[in-house]
Amino acid sequence: MKAIVIGGTGTLGRAVVQELERDHEVIAVGHTRGAYTVDITDDASVHALFAALGPVDAIVSTSGELHFGELATLQPAQFALGLQHKLLGQVRLALLGQHYLNEGGSITLTGGIVADEPIRGGSNATTVNTALQGFVRAAACELRGGRRINVVSPTMLSESAEQYAAFFPGFESVSAARAALAYRRSVSGIQSGRTLRVV
Amino acid sequence: MKAIVIGGTGTLGRAVVQELERDHEVIAVGHTRGAYTVDITDDASVHALFAALGPVDAIVSTSGELHFGELATLQPAQFALGLQHKLLGQVRLALLGQHYLNEGGSITLTGGIVADEPIRGGSNATTVNTALQGFVRAAACELRGGRRINVVSPTMLSESAEQYAAFFPGFESVSAARAALAYRRSVSGIQSGRTLRVV
Repeated sequence: MKAIVIGGTGTLGRAVVQELERDHEVIAVGHTRGAYTVDITDDASVHALFAALGPVDAIVSTSGELHFGELATLQPAQFALGLQHKLLGQVRLALLGQHYLNEGGSITLTGGIVADEPIRGGSNATTVNTALQGFVRAAACELRGGRRINVVSPTMLSESAEQYAAFFPGFESVSAARAALAYRRSVSGIQSGRTLRVV
Repeated sequence: MKAIVIGGTGTLGRAVVQELERDHEVIAVGHTRGAYTVDITDDASVHALFAALGPVDAIVSTSGELHFGELATLQPAQFALGLQHKLLGQVRLALLGQHYLNEGGSITLTGGIVADEPIRGGSNATTVNTALQGFVRAAACELRGGRRINVVSPTMLSESAEQYAAFFPGFESVSAARAALAYRRSVSGIQSGRTLRVV
């Protein structure tokens, strides 16, 4: 099975690559690093990536940026960043990627626990991560040929805890390796339209 | 209590205006019709509306456009329409409107049943309507001064059933007047961060 991991050069992405590499051919795609790069906010860049790689069996995304800022001072243009990047960017990977995905293949996107558990300054994150749950719920109903789509919703990673713990008071963290198992479940399992929470 | 209903000239909006007018001062705002108009995709237009009306006790939105189209042919730019309009447009009303909202006031946005029940060609609608559930869940945690925010998620309206029934096979419809009661609950109730489903 041939899998691509977009965001595969980041902390979570590297763990997903390592997990899937046990028994699949895996291509890690970065934003600026790696043998292959892609700008998920740009149709042409995404098409070029898929055209270069040829048909695949699994498209995994662990990429996407959000805006963090308190509601009282949040501006629509800042909010739009997360919509354009982590939400529409990953939707773009699914919409364009479905045409390069073999029958029986899967798409796995990345949300996050803030969908369910708001944090201060995280209204953009909650919105985007919740939206992705809706997108896979709907898209799963329309994909054909046994193609599937899910979103993984991990809590804070242990590897990032030092940097982010202050924003996640009382949250337990999980290792990237453990979060990667949910990507394995999505790629090798049978479910579709699901939010796979890792907490 | 002074309430504004943005989208108040549409089928649902008129019913909400009628419901709230029983005991509130209500200003109906249209996109192109009515004494007041606003373009919810434009910061300046939204600021101008709120500045003209002065402080309010309830901001209600029954407005926002989506893109409908089958997943197999859906393009990112089409998907972006719903993100920019029904999602970011209503988020804009909340972000900018919070600064014109009296203490104890409320914001009520409009989602829809397709958040929970996907329909063919509705992946943009499911995404946007689900995103709005996330936004109010997070924003409710950060609003201060007793200010509240909810989203109403109605099923197909009986008044629109002739036009839309083919897209909603087996769905029961509700009258706009009944859907309007959920807006009343949001405006006059105590809950916040909630999705008020009308099915």
